[in-house]
Amino acid sequence: MTKEAEVAEAGEFSAKDYHDPPPTPLIDVEELTKWSFYRALIAEFIATLLFLYVTVLTVIGYKSQSDDTKIDYDECNGVGILGIAWAFGGMIFILVYCTAGISGGHINPAVTFGLFLARKVSLVRAVMYMVAQCLGAICGCGLVKAFQKTYYNGYGGGANELQPGYNKGVGLGAEIIGTFVLVYTVFSATDPKRNARDSHIPVLAPLPIGFAVFMVHLATIPITGTGINPARSFGAAVIYNKEKAWDDQWIFWVGPFIGAAIAAFYHQYILRAAAIKALGSFRSNA
Amino acid sequence: MTKEAEVAEAGEFSAKDYHDPPPTPLIDVEELTKWSFYRALIAEFIATLLFLYVTVLTVIGYKSQSDDTKIDYDECNGVGILGIAWAFGGMIFILVYCTAGISGGHINPAVTFGLFLARKVSLVRAVMYMVAQCLGAICGCGLVKAFQKTYYNGYGGGANELQPGYNKGVGLGAEIIGTFVLVYTVFSATDPKRNARDSHIPVLAPLPIGFAVFMVHLATIPITGTGINPARSFGAAVIYNKEKAWDDQWIFWVGPFIGAAIAAFYHQYILRAAAIKALGSFRSNA
Amino acid sequence: MTKEAEVAEAGEFSAKDYHDPPPTPLIDVEELTKWSFYRALIAEFIATLLFLYVTVLTVIGYKSQSDDTKIDYDECNGVGILGIAWAFGGMIFILVYCTAGISGGHINPAVTFGLFLARKVSLVRAVMYMVAQCLGAICGCGLVKAFQKTYYNGYGGGANELQPGYNKGVGLGAEIIGTFVLVYTVFSATDPKRNARDSHIPVLAPLPIGFAVFMVHLATIPITGTGINPARSFGAAVIYNKEKAWDDQWIFWVGPFIGAAIAAFYHQYILRAAAIKALGSFRSNA
Amino acid sequence: MTKEAEVAEAGEFSAKDYHDPPPTPLIDVEELTKWSFYRALIAEFIATLLFLYVTVLTVIGYKSQSDDTKIDYDECNGVGILGIAWAFGGMIFILVYCTAGISGGHINPAVTFGLFLARKVSLVRAVMYMVAQCLGAICGCGLVKAFQKTYYNGYGGGANELQPGYNKGVGLGAEIIGTFVLVYTVFSATDPKRNARDSHIPVLAPLPIGFAVFMVHLATIPITGTGINPARSFGAAVIYNKEKAWDDQWIFWVGPFIGAAIAAFYHQYILRAAAIKALGSFRSNA
Repeated sequence: MTKEAEVAEAGEFSAKDYHDPPPTPLIDVEELTKWSFYRALIAEFIATLLFLYVTVLTVIGYKSQSDDTKIDYDECNGVGILGIAWAFGGMIFILVYCTAGISGGHINPAVTFGLFLARKVSLVRAVMYMVAQCLGAICGCGLVKAFQKTYYNGYGGGANELQPGYNKGVGLGAEIIGTFVLVYTVFSATDPKRNARDSHIPVLAPLPIGFAVFMVHLATIPITGTGINPARSFGAAVIYNKEKAWDDQWIFWVGPFIGAAIAAFYHQYILRAAAIKALGSFRSNA
Repeated sequence: MTKEAEVAEAGEFSAKDYHDPPPTPLIDVEELTKWSFYRALIAEFIATLLFLYVTVLTVIGYKSQSDDTKIDYDECNGVGILGIAWAFGGMIFILVYCTAGISGGHINPAVTFGLFLARKVSLVRAVMYMVAQCLGAICGCGLVKAFQKTYYNGYGGGANELQPGYNKGVGLGAEIIGTFVLVYTVFSATDPKRNARDSHIPVLAPLPIGFAVFMVHLATIPITGTGINPARSFGAAVIYNKEKAWDDQWIFWVGPFIGAAIAAFYHQYILRAAAIKALGSFRSNA
Repeated sequence: MTKEAEVAEAGEFSAKDYHDPPPTPLIDVEELTKWSFYRALIAEFIATLLFLYVTVLTVIGYKSQSDDTKIDYDECNGVGILGIAWAFGGMIFILVYCTAGISGGHINPAVTFGLFLARKVSLVRAVMYMVAQCLGAICGCGLVKAFQKTYYNGYGGGANELQPGYNKGVGLGAEIIGTFVLVYTVFSATDPKRNARDSHIPVLAPLPIGFAVFMVHLATIPITGTGINPARSFGAAVIYNKEKAWDDQWIFWVGPFIGAAIAAFYHQYILRAAAIKALGSFRSNA
Repeated sequence: MTKEAEVAEAGEFSAKDYHDPPPTPLIDVEELTKWSFYRALIAEFIATLLFLYVTVLTVIGYKSQSDDTKIDYDECNGVGILGIAWAFGGMIFILVYCTAGISGGHINPAVTFGLFLARKVSLVRAVMYMVAQCLGAICGCGLVKAFQKTYYNGYGGGANELQPGYNKGVGLGAEIIGTFVLVYTVFSATDPKRNARDSHIPVLAPLPIGFAVFMVHLATIPITGTGINPARSFGAAVIYNKEKAWDDQWIFWVGPFIGAAIAAFYHQYILRAAAIKALGSFRSNA
């Protein structure tokens, strides 16, 4: 291969080195006739169910560890906030990895909303995904309650609530910025320009997305318990069903949706300003 | 670039961009004549031995740390449940990475069972793998007992037992869902369709598989100690050899096998419904 | 196999399998006329803002966890130093991943300085990046202070200060070596030679860069709180605004800049000595 | 698809889809005349220095955290054994990543010894690497002692010693098996067959190698403090210089060298039995 050809192919391409898919129509009747659409709904349902099951079980379960008579753990061996943050981030990593090719791997109404605003999914698909995600979250939390009868209500049911000492504005702000971090990472990871630059291999995409969830949990568990996923907050509230969880519920829908909208705007209008060709360089834009 | 050109370039295929290998015959006499078959058995034996050795040593060893006279660790420095979960997940990551090209990297009878149901391995291979895995697990636990005479029995021998306060149904359910998460990830990671999409580079496959094991341990250590691997539970029970471990042993075979069967069914009949061509899109199925 | 054949096969290039881009001019007037330059500044600003927001919130927030009345965490469940180190390393991982294609993903004046010394960015770009990074850091810390009024000052505001028992020389040395580890990793990850060897896929680059930050935090949090990023230290000092933080501030500029300079020298003059063609082998230089 | 076609397509090779490089001569005079040889020695020296600096600083430093007057950590926030294990594993990940293209990324005399036995490096190179690694380790520990005068000796200097309650046979066994896990992973990650299968992209190689070190530390820190790297044990012993560290020193040379030799034998004679062509399949060897 000549050097010119190599350079052209590798990163510094001619003008048309990638192409944005055309915007998805708001209502795409054709997709309703395809099995792949319903399969995607099933995949979103199952993934959100597994997400809530594993994460809320981790939240609830680690308190009961001191009761183990056999292994006799000392008091400091619970998985802690760090383990809980890993559970949320790690599950998103594997579930995005598993469902990316089937449904796009949203597992989160805020992600679906952001991708809808960017015209990556149709309105019908967005609404149906959100329904599937919320149903999955309810079932996942229901399983945890069934498995952890003794501890479920005592340890807060994994529900998102504003913690004492923080006002609603702080909680809303934390949810907005947290969801911005997540949806910004999603847009960056699935940008067609990146794929072109990386030789069409979106190979690491699920890992930074999972890490974004991990990071936000480290930062905001003390404030809101960390939602950044309305289905997660809704499912836990339905099963836990205490007044405080319902009173604060709006924060965990309004915040994530605003955060996702800002991320979509930031990515589409600032970073990807349509008329401007990116340099495509890495760490050194000459 | 047109879409056809893009697809063609992404992996240089025609429209038929992946192929399912034909189902493996139940009994494949020819494979018994090949060294690669026996080499695979050795690799499964050694990998399962190393898996149990490192993980059970971590479980047992971290309690003895407070006895260190020299370094004088304070009580809170054990690796904790989080460290134990990392040990299980991390070992599966490196062992799947190391043995994937030799034996397929099962290291777990439930994984072997799931792949057998999906007709990816022959019956003879499946049975022989399980025997090699169980023998490896016994040897691995035996090494730990030999190295940790003082603590092995006192700290439960790393054996899986239903913890107090949970009934058998919960234990079985936790094993079923936990194994489903693992085997679902295995199917997703090794799907020929994914490999086609990712230019034949199953490069990340061992990482999400290891993370799946990590996640399930975070969630279910308080309930069953987390089996999701019958060889791991069997090996620990043989070496620990206490009545409770044997009484509960069936849970750690029936649960994982049911979970693996559901995952195989879910992947083969729901996600990969044979007649339907996937869209192959990522996060935006138009 | 002959060496030529090996090289040729490794990536199907001719002998000249990579090329160093020409040095960037000190002042590149043309770049000031491009939207991509200003977009890069915005990306650096936002990324540094998010970096400080998440990390300092993690530092401050984990102390307030014991006040939760509902979930009633016991004392040992804070994310701890390990969680804080993860927050810093993990955020760098995702932010480098997200901004690499837009601004090069510096998020750190020391990295910008190192790349400027290696003539990868122009002087104008380097200075403007540093300004954007410092402004972003101030805004990020400001958000944390606004969200954590109760705890912000009490828990040190995430500011870098020399800890008691260590003299200034130790602090400076720790910052120099820590930044060397980071910038050495940055140079290694973005080396055009590596990209050639890896078929032009700098796919893992953000991960080791994030891990380098994680590692240095594990090692030097007890000494200086770990700066290795002048924007991070400056932003926290501006918002925290206590005398000690300002007195020690010079350490967190001089140290990182010296460390970055040594890393640039080491990479450019020792490892990449211009006249010498690398062997390009991995783990076995024949 | 026929199997032949599949193999051919997987990487576009003929049947001979990978090549073992010829064995390296014992003494290769030519390499002594090349700058790349001396550059590799410098890289090994610096990498081992940074490895010991960061890891021993983490071991020593986390005890002094409770003295912080400002941030007032409670007692349970040290990075713990888990953080120490991350420091060792994470540093190996980034240092192998950084030096792989320069020196092969050994950073460990046991790895060098294993690769020498497999005839991947010449005798001269192996000896010189080990000298560079030991010198680097001494300098790295010396830096920690200089930085941590108050705590260095009190907290054991990061030296490897057999812990009370374990006899020499257990310590030796733990080092042998631990080094086997590491060197087995190194051989698996750098196998030319794997590279062929993965389209010449050894992209994940440093990550499982780092994880192998992480895992072994989780398991054997309570027994020996975990050596599996004679340069690490030797450097710490030289700087700490207490009788017990020297008395046990032989364990940390004999154990790792035996473990590396077994791993080299296992990989070369069992897994890669020369006459046998691998099937190259992943998770399903039909």
